[in-house]
Amino acid sequence: MDTSALDAARLIIDLGRPGLIVVDEHEHPIAILPNSQVLRVMIPGYVQDDPALARVLDEAYADHISDVLSQRTVADMLPRDRVTLPVVAPDDTALEIAAIMAANRSPIVAVVEERSKTAPMLGAITVSMLLGRLLPPAS
Amino acid sequence: MDTSALDAARLIIDLGRPGLIVVDEHEHPIAILPNSQVLRVMIPGYVQDDPALARVLDEAYADHISDVLSQRTVADMLPRDRVTLPVVAPDDTALEIAAIMAANRSPIVAVVEERSKTAPMLGAITVSMLLGRLLPPAS
Repeated sequence: MDTSALDAARLIIDLGRPGLIVVDEHEHPIAILPNSQVLRVMIPGYVQDDPALARVLDEAYADHISDVLSQRTVADMLPRDRVTLPVVAPDDTALEIAAIMAANRSPIVAVVEERSKTAPMLGAITVSMLLGRLLPPAS
Repeated sequence: MDTSALDAARLIIDLGRPGLIVVDEHEHPIAILPNSQVLRVMIPGYVQDDPALARVLDEAYADHISDVLSQRTVADMLPRDRVTLPVVAPDDTALEIAAIMAANRSPIVAVVEERSKTAPMLGAITVSMLLGRLLPPAS
């Protein structure tokens, strides 16, 4: 939660994933941070209201983006209407995980040792990984 | 819109992206299909309501997933509350594109030759690609 927005942005660039999983001080997964939230702290509100105004943000503004991001944290970027991050356990079946993702419309689930509110994250499963297991190879 | 859900699922597996861009008959981009929508047509509604019931779906059901998906199309899978797909033009600046993505909370924009309702898609830009251009390399 206290990682800087700049470090989060660099992770997004390096990993090329659609979002980041945010963990608390116990490494327990608590939320998804969609990549677009980084842009929301980076671009002034009046420009988001009228994107044509972005033309008034000059090179000097672009040079300051790193500074802007280094002063914010992941906690600052989490949307108020947080995206639910479903959690699964190691012994859940592929179809159970598919049902949980479908019900939550979630592109990802976090895997924790047991379904508790403190267990650290073991990994994550995306829809794409899950479909790869559920569907037979194309013939 | 008339691509089968099975072909869409295979694209999702092969590309590993968070969703697909749906185009109309003129190749004009019209919507984002989030990956999780494939799971929504694949998993029966009563199981989505209570994912624990997935344990009753046996191996035989898993074997039929390809058949279920081959009978549905992308049009069937688009959510009613469609995810907005913002569109940008080739001469838009990086900051304008960032403002449009921030305003729409969109992880992706489609690039079209001109901002019309029929122009074919030239490509797409993700938040991760955009941040890579806007931020200087880590020192």
